[in-house]
Amino acid sequence: MRNFLVTIMYDGRSFHGWQVQDNADSVQEQFQKALYEVIGERPDIKGCSRTDAGVHANQYCISFHTAHTIPADRLPLALNRFLPATIAALSACEVAEDFHARYSCKGKEYIYKINNAAVRNPFLEGYALHYWHNLDETVMHEAAQHFLGRHDFTSFCTVDPHRKKGDFHRTVRNIAVERSGDIVTVTIEADGFLYNMARIIVGTLLSVAQKKIRPDDIPDIIETLDRKAAGPTAPPQGLYLNRVFY
Amino acid sequence: MRNFLVTIMYDGRSFHGWQVQDNADSVQEQFQKALYEVIGERPDIKGCSRTDAGVHANQYCISFHTAHTIPADRLPLALNRFLPATIAALSACEVAEDFHARYSCKGKEYIYKINNAAVRNPFLEGYALHYWHNLDETVMHEAAQHFLGRHDFTSFCTVDPHRKKGDFHRTVRNIAVERSGDIVTVTIEADGFLYNMARIIVGTLLSVAQKKIRPDDIPDIIETLDRKAAGPTAPPQGLYLNRVFY
Repeated sequence: MRNFLVTIMYDGRSFHGWQVQDNADSVQEQFQKALYEVIGERPDIKGCSRTDAGVHANQYCISFHTAHTIPADRLPLALNRFLPATIAALSACEVAEDFHARYSCKGKEYIYKINNAAVRNPFLEGYALHYWHNLDETVMHEAAQHFLGRHDFTSFCTVDPHRKKGDFHRTVRNIAVERSGDIVTVTIEADGFLYNMARIIVGTLLSVAQKKIRPDDIPDIIETLDRKAAGPTAPPQGLYLNRVFY
Repeated sequence: MRNFLVTIMYDGRSFHGWQVQDNADSVQEQFQKALYEVIGERPDIKGCSRTDAGVHANQYCISFHTAHTIPADRLPLALNRFLPATIAALSACEVAEDFHARYSCKGKEYIYKINNAAVRNPFLEGYALHYWHNLDETVMHEAAQHFLGRHDFTSFCTVDPHRKKGDFHRTVRNIAVERSGDIVTVTIEADGFLYNMARIIVGTLLSVAQKKIRPDDIPDIIETLDRKAAGPTAPPQGLYLNRVFY
């Protein structure tokens, strides 16, 4: 059997996340349909992460096994004929037999876009959080540096009852808050992300900008292992899975 | 009576253009509804131009008379409460009694965005034309300079049977083709635009890039006063009304 790794990009506005669900359009379902059109099979396809409804992906990785003989470099063009316009296959390659899009992943980078302007921008509707009070990105950036390193991120996780006993330690390798015109972008790279971790970190940095949380409180919030100590979960529409590392 | 000039921005994907139509959502209809919520009147509102279905506006101007006492600087915020997320009111001011958004207009600037990349981008779907063959923006820019100045643009107009006897002379004041990464942008400023003129100029510049039309043929195409001599009408989704001059 051959094992393929396919990289796609998608506009999350149209989907209820990656995972197949009843009565809701998902990226996985659309990908499976297009793949069936191309290779005539329905292999078990593995996505690199669950993503929530409304979350976007500049890079999302999928792996699957097949005996089909299609050359890897022909696969993206073939898939794009059948994928909706809201999903694009960017590249494909063959990988080792035991490679798994999720379990082989060594890290991910998310970005979160905030349109920090007095008036909303129709072209950013669903693509960035609109936040009209002036944000001090320098203060947010400095506060964010407290997240760097290996921590138990229980305070920054929406508890998932199915994995209460999991390991909540993650390593944040890079975090930055930068402004370009009206757009403030939060970039977070980690070896892995707990459920809603990126959005709760962003919500906490917004609380810092609002002076509801002091930058120096962040180490205590991490240590307290209590979701209620952190800021709110930022809405999904500003979040993009940006890079996946193997 | 007071006369207001309101500037809006809108995402044209959701609308069948500016003008009210039966069985189709228009920007004018949405603006009229929001204005009624704010001032409790339905004045005759004048838009700066007709725009086609799918065409966007970074700046679109509207004027109307009312006796309402609302301060001009409060109007945008009040309108934004009732406008859909795909339309934003940016600013408002009071203007002279005889000002008319369309007839007082001294010029407009349109931009046309082309995503010149091998693979489509889901985030540009409906916001830029996807053109996958490599475009030489330098050749397009040089060819475009032939449009500068005052010409009879009959060859660059979809004939409107209701105004066959109009004046087809327009003055192109600036035209440029520039690349930023994958995005090639055509900018055209003129004292006025005939129906589809911007889109036919862009279609003709694409024909130049495809070597179907030589740059030096453009003066002859203008002089021949024949729509069939020019290139095709580029599709609407890349077009933005960008600036309106009074």
